[in-house]
Amino acid sequence: MRMTMEQASGVTSLLDELAGYGSTADGGVTRLLYSQSWKDAQSFLAAKMSAAGLEVRYDRVGNLFGRMEGSRKGQGVVLTGSHIDTVRSGGRYDGAYGIAASLAAVAFLRSAYGEPRRPLEVVSFCEEEGSRFPLAYWGSGNITGAYSTGMAQRVVDPQGITLAHAMQAAGFGREDQPECLRKDLAAFVEVHVEQGVILERTGGRIGVVETIAGQRRYVVTVKGETNHAGTTPMAMRRDAAAGAAEMIAMLERAANRAGEPLVATVGRMKLMPNIPNVIAGTVEFTLDIRHISETLLTGFSDAVIGSFHSVAERRGLELDVHAALQARPAPMDPVLTGRLEKICSDGGISYRRMMSGAGHDGQMFVNCCPTAMLFVPSKGGVSHSPEEYTAAEDLAYGVVVLAEMLYDLAYEETLT
Amino acid sequence: MRMTMEQASGVTSLLDELAGYGSTADGGVTRLLYSQSWKDAQSFLAAKMSAAGLEVRYDRVGNLFGRMEGSRKGQGVVLTGSHIDTVRSGGRYDGAYGIAASLAAVAFLRSAYGEPRRPLEVVSFCEEEGSRFPLAYWGSGNITGAYSTGMAQRVVDPQGITLAHAMQAAGFGREDQPECLRKDLAAFVEVHVEQGVILERTGGRIGVVETIAGQRRYVVTVKGETNHAGTTPMAMRRDAAAGAAEMIAMLERAANRAGEPLVATVGRMKLMPNIPNVIAGTVEFTLDIRHISETLLTGFSDAVIGSFHSVAERRGLELDVHAALQARPAPMDPVLTGRLEKICSDGGISYRRMMSGAGHDGQMFVNCCPTAMLFVPSKGGVSHSPEEYTAAEDLAYGVVVLAEMLYDLAYEETLT
Repeated sequence: MRMTMEQASGVTSLLDELAGYGSTADGGVTRLLYSQSWKDAQSFLAAKMSAAGLEVRYDRVGNLFGRMEGSRKGQGVVLTGSHIDTVRSGGRYDGAYGIAASLAAVAFLRSAYGEPRRPLEVVSFCEEEGSRFPLAYWGSGNITGAYSTGMAQRVVDPQGITLAHAMQAAGFGREDQPECLRKDLAAFVEVHVEQGVILERTGGRIGVVETIAGQRRYVVTVKGETNHAGTTPMAMRRDAAAGAAEMIAMLERAANRAGEPLVATVGRMKLMPNIPNVIAGTVEFTLDIRHISETLLTGFSDAVIGSFHSVAERRGLELDVHAALQARPAPMDPVLTGRLEKICSDGGISYRRMMSGAGHDGQMFVNCCPTAMLFVPSKGGVSHSPEEYTAAEDLAYGVVVLAEMLYDLAYEETLT
Repeated sequence: MRMTMEQASGVTSLLDELAGYGSTADGGVTRLLYSQSWKDAQSFLAAKMSAAGLEVRYDRVGNLFGRMEGSRKGQGVVLTGSHIDTVRSGGRYDGAYGIAASLAAVAFLRSAYGEPRRPLEVVSFCEEEGSRFPLAYWGSGNITGAYSTGMAQRVVDPQGITLAHAMQAAGFGREDQPECLRKDLAAFVEVHVEQGVILERTGGRIGVVETIAGQRRYVVTVKGETNHAGTTPMAMRRDAAAGAAEMIAMLERAANRAGEPLVATVGRMKLMPNIPNVIAGTVEFTLDIRHISETLLTGFSDAVIGSFHSVAERRGLELDVHAALQARPAPMDPVLTGRLEKICSDGGISYRRMMSGAGHDGQMFVNCCPTAMLFVPSKGGVSHSPEEYTAAEDLAYGVVVLAEMLYDLAYEETLT
């Protein structure tokens, strides 16, 4: 390996510094899109990129890039990085590690090998989590053309602020700022914490991602009749909570029957009026379903929603199912994936091919350029929590493998 | 009947006026304990009582009384009334009707028959609903000795205000104010809207309550493990929401098997962290169970909680079941109940013996004095809602029957 573990260990202090921006009382980090802590974190990274000799620029939505120019004219760019935003009271690794690792790897390559053949850019995506606005991948989506800045007028946060307004208040969204869409990309590589327990349980240092699972997210609204819990006989009820409970129990059984890697989750639920002695008239819950096969994902989702309709009909409930998010499975580039495996294998680093159940910026790039993704272990699989943790050694292994991969892509002739 | 329907019809305008205190934009009424609208409503009633020639006083917790003195010394008091507080955005009949009907009936008796043998008092209980503080029957509980004012230090509303503080801010709770406990009661009679559909569906004008159902209320906390909805295989989950759904579905099946008059309801539920792509680590839900038999109520509740424990154990979840409320079934006085039946029967008013699934102030009095309760129909059974409605004619029938009953109790020798 070109980079030593000691050289790679600097990633830890960079992460520590980054976690100071938006740190919360419970030990977590909150950096919502376009907030002050978000701006401060991007400014901190811009200074670090600049200090590493990279040419710094923001695009129109606030994606931050640090570029090392390539020696050959007209060569596509090798892009690497992750997202700077967090969930509320999230961990210090999710997103941030991918940026810190990319910066550490590129800074090392520049100091050790100087100018690459292809331009090499580190990116800090402005947004991925969908924590502030009901929209995820705002950064990578604008770069890859899935989104356009015009959408920002129609997206509103819980305080009623439009994405457009928040963007402008943070100093972005102006027509004189560089457009986001990139057509000059040769490859994208992202390193991220696994946010699951597979590497930990199997003893792998590196996860080589084959596919990012496709996802369906629905908002299900069950409407019955609000009534007094004491005076309404069981047989006269149209209880939305009892109906929702039957649906959720049914979903879990169906998911268990379908088997891995399908996962299905009801994570948010709201009863109305939500009073102990009142039968719930309305229940709204979310439904999150993921699988690596688009066909199986669609088949399962349709079957579950069909069974929800049967339950609602039998109980005299109204049912509305709103499709809130639909992401197709995103297969990583097989050449790049194979290259990552070879790097691990040659370096004697234990690795495992795996799918990603979580969504990542990487999935936005699969139709634009060859894309690869690697994971490092997450302690206990915990993520989106102050308890998120990855050991320093694992963080360094990720940097070492990433540096090797970026060398291959930008300095060698791996990409044709 | 002594009182004509026309004489009784004044109850409607009194109710209309009362609904002006705490009226909400959605057409409902919100009068939380010790709020400004609550104080204004009590003041309005005090003025009405005074205008009807009744002697007005508040007790230490803010129960309001209007008294007509009796001609014989040392005779127990006939008390009638209901509660002035409401749920949030409740209807204009729940509680208020019982006060308005009592005032209308007593004012009529005074003007038509003058001084009774026994003192006759109208009461507007300060609180029954438990809408602001996690405690119900604060008014009647203090009168009957179930509660004492000292408890008010330990009870806190969602804003962190103690019941003691709220009471003092409203001008009550002072040692120089009259004590609440009454040992001078000869009878208590309450008229209330049914809050159910039984009278409507069976065409009864008056419900003669035999028993107020006993109630158990629990707060159930299910603890599993918060985790990422995409990266945690189904088999590795300890999903508190899926566990709670299984429990709720099981509860409903058990309640249906038990049959009428048992009812069981989960009306409030909270997932934590309540995020679509995060497996719920904790779910808290309420469990409300009612039956007229204490034995069956206890047996059912224990069995259900036992089955919840089995579900939790099988799923590796922690379970905590907190008993929040326990009210024994309250049988009404058979002599008074029979008297109510005879009044309806003699007056040619259709009636029906029934249980009350809802809790009422009346249940607090059953160990203190002979207690009776009568219902008038609720349109569609709707209550705790701006849609709550009882036709003016039904309201008047209730007043006519109540006046007859109060005449029997206070002017005649019915009570020995």
